[in-house]
Amino acid sequence: MTTASSSATAAIAEELVSFCKAGRNMDAIETLYSPDIVSIESMGNASMPREVKGLDAVRGKGEWWRTNNEVHAATVDGPFVGDDDKFAVYYNYDVTFKPTGKRNNMEEMALYTVKDGKVVREQFFYRTSDT
Amino acid sequence: MTTASSSATAAIAEELVSFCKAGRNMDAIETLYSPDIVSIESMGNASMPREVKGLDAVRGKGEWWRTNNEVHAATVDGPFVGDDDKFAVYYNYDVTFKPTGKRNNMEEMALYTVKDGKVVREQFFYRTSDT
Repeated sequence: MTTASSSATAAIAEELVSFCKAGRNMDAIETLYSPDIVSIESMGNASMPREVKGLDAVRGKGEWWRTNNEVHAATVDGPFVGDDDKFAVYYNYDVTFKPTGKRNNMEEMALYTVKDGKVVREQFFYRTSDT
Repeated sequence: MTTASSSATAAIAEELVSFCKAGRNMDAIETLYSPDIVSIESMGNASMPREVKGLDAVRGKGEWWRTNNEVHAATVDGPFVGDDDKFAVYYNYDVTFKPTGKRNNMEEMALYTVKDGKVVREQFFYRTSDT
C-alpha cells in the first residue's frame, strides 16, 4: 500500500459515487473515465459482449441501459476503498425493463480500477431477479 | 460516518481477509461471525435457498462447498472498506466442481455488514462461468 495512490483512488471513488447518487452516471463516465476504459459485465450475450473497450463503447452501453429501463428508485452505497488502486460501489435499481414491461430489482457491485487519475477498468457483479 | 465504527469495521475486515488469504475461511466464520449471521447468495435453487440464517447454516454451506470443489488457486483482494458498517472483498477461485469434473473460474464480490464487532450479514455477487 502507498498512501498517495490510495488517497488518489479514494478521491476519484468519492467523485464517482457523488455523480451516481445524483443520477449523473454519464457525467461520471465523461469526467472520470480513461479513453481506454475496459468494461466487464457478469455475463455477455450475442448482442452485448461481456467485455467492451473504449469510451464510445461504454457510452453506448449507458445509453442503451437508460433507453431500455425506467428507474423507479436507486440506491448507491459506497465507495468501498481498497489499499491500492481499486474501489467498489454497491448499486440497487428498482427498474422496469421497457421491452418486456417487467419490473425487477437490479442489485450489483462494481469493482473499479484507477490508473493515472482515471478509471481504467470497471467490472460488474450482479443478479437481476429473485429466485 | 463515525470514525470509530469505521475503524472497527476496518479491523474486522482485515482479520477476515487475512483468514481467507490463508485458506482459513472456516476460522473466519467461527471467529468473526455473529450467531445470527444472514448469508445471501446471488441465486438460490431447490436444494440451496438464496438466503440462510445462523452459524450452523453458514457452516453447512462452507462444508458443502469445500466437499464439492477442488481449489487449484485462489485470489483474495481487499478489504474494500466503506464509511460505515460495511466492507467488501473480491474473490477469484480456480476450481473443479467434483460432481461434474468441470473446471471453472468462480469470480465474486462479497459485501459484509458488521454490528457490535461481529459480521451479521454477508451477500455474494458473482458469475460462475465465462460466456
